[in-house]
Amino acid sequence: MPAPSAVPPPTARAGTCRTGCNPTGAQATGRTVATALPVRHRVRFVPGVLDPANPALARAGGPPGRRLVVVEARVRELYGRLLHRYPAAQGVEHETLVLPVHEQVKTMDAVFRVADRMDSSGIYRRGEPVIAIGGGVLADVVGLACSLYRRSTPFVRVPTTLAALVDAGAGAGATTGVDHGRHGNRLGTYHPAADTLLDPAFLATLDRRHLGNGLAEILQVALIKDGDLFGLLERHGRALLDEGFRGSHRAGAEVLTRAVRGMLQDLQPGLREHRPARLTDYGHSFSPTVELRALPELLHGEAVCVDMALTTVVAQRRGLLDPEQAERILRLMRRLELPVWHPLVEPVTLAEALADTVRHRDGRQRLPLPAGIGSGVFVDDLTDGELAGAARWLRDRAAADRVREEHEGREVRA
Amino acid sequence: MPAPSAVPPPTARAGTCRTGCNPTGAQATGRTVATALPVRHRVRFVPGVLDPANPALARAGGPPGRRLVVVEARVRELYGRLLHRYPAAQGVEHETLVLPVHEQVKTMDAVFRVADRMDSSGIYRRGEPVIAIGGGVLADVVGLACSLYRRSTPFVRVPTTLAALVDAGAGAGATTGVDHGRHGNRLGTYHPAADTLLDPAFLATLDRRHLGNGLAEILQVALIKDGDLFGLLERHGRALLDEGFRGSHRAGAEVLTRAVRGMLQDLQPGLREHRPARLTDYGHSFSPTVELRALPELLHGEAVCVDMALTTVVAQRRGLLDPEQAERILRLMRRLELPVWHPLVEPVTLAEALADTVRHRDGRQRLPLPAGIGSGVFVDDLTDGELAGAARWLRDRAAADRVREEHEGREVRA
Repeated sequence: MPAPSAVPPPTARAGTCRTGCNPTGAQATGRTVATALPVRHRVRFVPGVLDPANPALARAGGPPGRRLVVVEARVRELYGRLLHRYPAAQGVEHETLVLPVHEQVKTMDAVFRVADRMDSSGIYRRGEPVIAIGGGVLADVVGLACSLYRRSTPFVRVPTTLAALVDAGAGAGATTGVDHGRHGNRLGTYHPAADTLLDPAFLATLDRRHLGNGLAEILQVALIKDGDLFGLLERHGRALLDEGFRGSHRAGAEVLTRAVRGMLQDLQPGLREHRPARLTDYGHSFSPTVELRALPELLHGEAVCVDMALTTVVAQRRGLLDPEQAERILRLMRRLELPVWHPLVEPVTLAEALADTVRHRDGRQRLPLPAGIGSGVFVDDLTDGELAGAARWLRDRAAADRVREEHEGREVRA
Repeated sequence: MPAPSAVPPPTARAGTCRTGCNPTGAQATGRTVATALPVRHRVRFVPGVLDPANPALARAGGPPGRRLVVVEARVRELYGRLLHRYPAAQGVEHETLVLPVHEQVKTMDAVFRVADRMDSSGIYRRGEPVIAIGGGVLADVVGLACSLYRRSTPFVRVPTTLAALVDAGAGAGATTGVDHGRHGNRLGTYHPAADTLLDPAFLATLDRRHLGNGLAEILQVALIKDGDLFGLLERHGRALLDEGFRGSHRAGAEVLTRAVRGMLQDLQPGLREHRPARLTDYGHSFSPTVELRALPELLHGEAVCVDMALTTVVAQRRGLLDPEQAERILRLMRRLELPVWHPLVEPVTLAEALADTVRHRDGRQRLPLPAGIGSGVFVDDLTDGELAGAARWLRDRAAADRVREEHEGREVRA
């Protein structure tokens, strides 16, 4: 059989652009279409977002009109009356889809449920954003549905957990995704919410464990880029955990503002991960594998904390942190009631997690490690032996902590 | 229950960018992140793309390395030996996934098959593009898998059908998608192939019906923006159908070049459909609904042709085409052995199709109609009565054509 060849010979002009081809100023050279897709991603604090007198949510992301509201079952339980009163008070015609959402239903089936409801509700393609009220998993699922539906429909995010609130400013706020196969977030897109409205009042109804889960995300920003934020967490983190960010002092607002700002700074140049080395990848080298394999045992922030504890020990052994700094970090994690070790932190799982991260980072480790408190470096030469050593050290440390906690009546005192 | 309010009051500085926030020059105002994602989409003619001596495909879309090749079952049958010899000759380590692909398997399940193979093959995330060799459905499915896999992996397209070759330069070449529910392409993304290699030699093994299907896409460009191309189709279209674009004359190359160029011109400013009125939407107002409901009866181009015939009659009745022009158009469609009517072209289906298109075009019809041969206009005031009248006229015309064809021994003579 002959190889396909030039019969008939196509001319060299194929795809060459002439007058009228380039009205937007995009660059067209020869046969390459080069252009850029504009992306806008608004993130703002809106206290009292469900206050019937507050028009911000009704006007977010598009002109007044119909809205499909997708809300997490737990949020509907807690805020059902407001969710009912708000659209009526603001004159918004709406439908509500209640999704039972947790890490185990972060699947394409949940995406289909949202897409099917978008279909049956008959919302317009671009001018009537879907409103997602819930945690990070809900936002990931609704965001992916909106990204795929008719090749993109806008959505508005109202995070109700501390982790989702902080992540809204992060790369995670621009990405969507579901788990697939044995991998977390294996299928997803870049589709930031058109508008994200942050209301810390939701934190008052969060349980203690989910507050800690969000504090882990804040600790991530603190460790790698904001030493002052680390200090705030040392002084006020336990009180924030006890009080759900209520209370009269201003530490809560300062912590939230610094965390969101730190995330946004990293997002801007790296929206589509064109800059593969990102400091906010810190804590996300081993945690994706550990989190998925441990399901449903670890929350996302808890898995990130285990990852940060591991790399803290690695960094200390490399001299990037002095022993006293490493001790402060591990002590703060325990004060925030976060795990510093998990049985999956063992050589085989860690080696597999590193291999997958290397594939994700295009053949290089690009591994962020803390270097002092509040800054980080990237390394490409981490060995399985280093990982195994650090894991062993943490296992022993966790065992010692446990003994001490039992001795102290299950209470950790720094 | 009180409305969530500002406890603690977040500061106004949230998300405000400081020094170091904006190294790429993206615009950051207050709390809005505004940036742009670069998109490059190369489209070029590469005669002899599977010739073992031709390095173009091996080097397309990334540095030499491993490749996952996804190929349509039918193409594998026809070109299996070359598909085996080519990577060996070019020193490309590869795996092949053979997909049985047709309009009825354009589903998320097919996307999962590709994604799972990407997973098991262990290709790197960004530097090792997937190669998709086949028609438009294969490209839609592989493109969506690559778009979703780790939030985007590059792919290279080698179209093997006339429709896919022409569409590679069109908006369709930048979009991916699968059917969902009762709707065609309901779920999809914008993810153009990094590189598209067009080799007309594949057309030699296309059956007559699929050649006609592709000629319908070329007719679309001709009708709405290239009167000279329409003339070429009148003179040479039947010969191209008979010969599969082989033969010594240059009409085939000219037709392909003009069609791809016409599509590319429309793509550049409208890649993400930010300009909702696009002339290449012509033929795509009613056809999505008709095509999906008629499955597997109509090929895509055939459904598009039925849509174009309908809007030709509407345009003639509005005085946008004179009767002789309308007759030339319908006669050419018959000469290319394309349908001008289908039983689903009746008032109820057409009204539903129009309603769905209005939702897709954000509440407006933005309906392209031919205005003379080679140009078009958009209207927003089409009535169900006009559609029903045009449909009735075409039904009678199709019946008369059928009688005449039978009388002439099933042969249409112009």
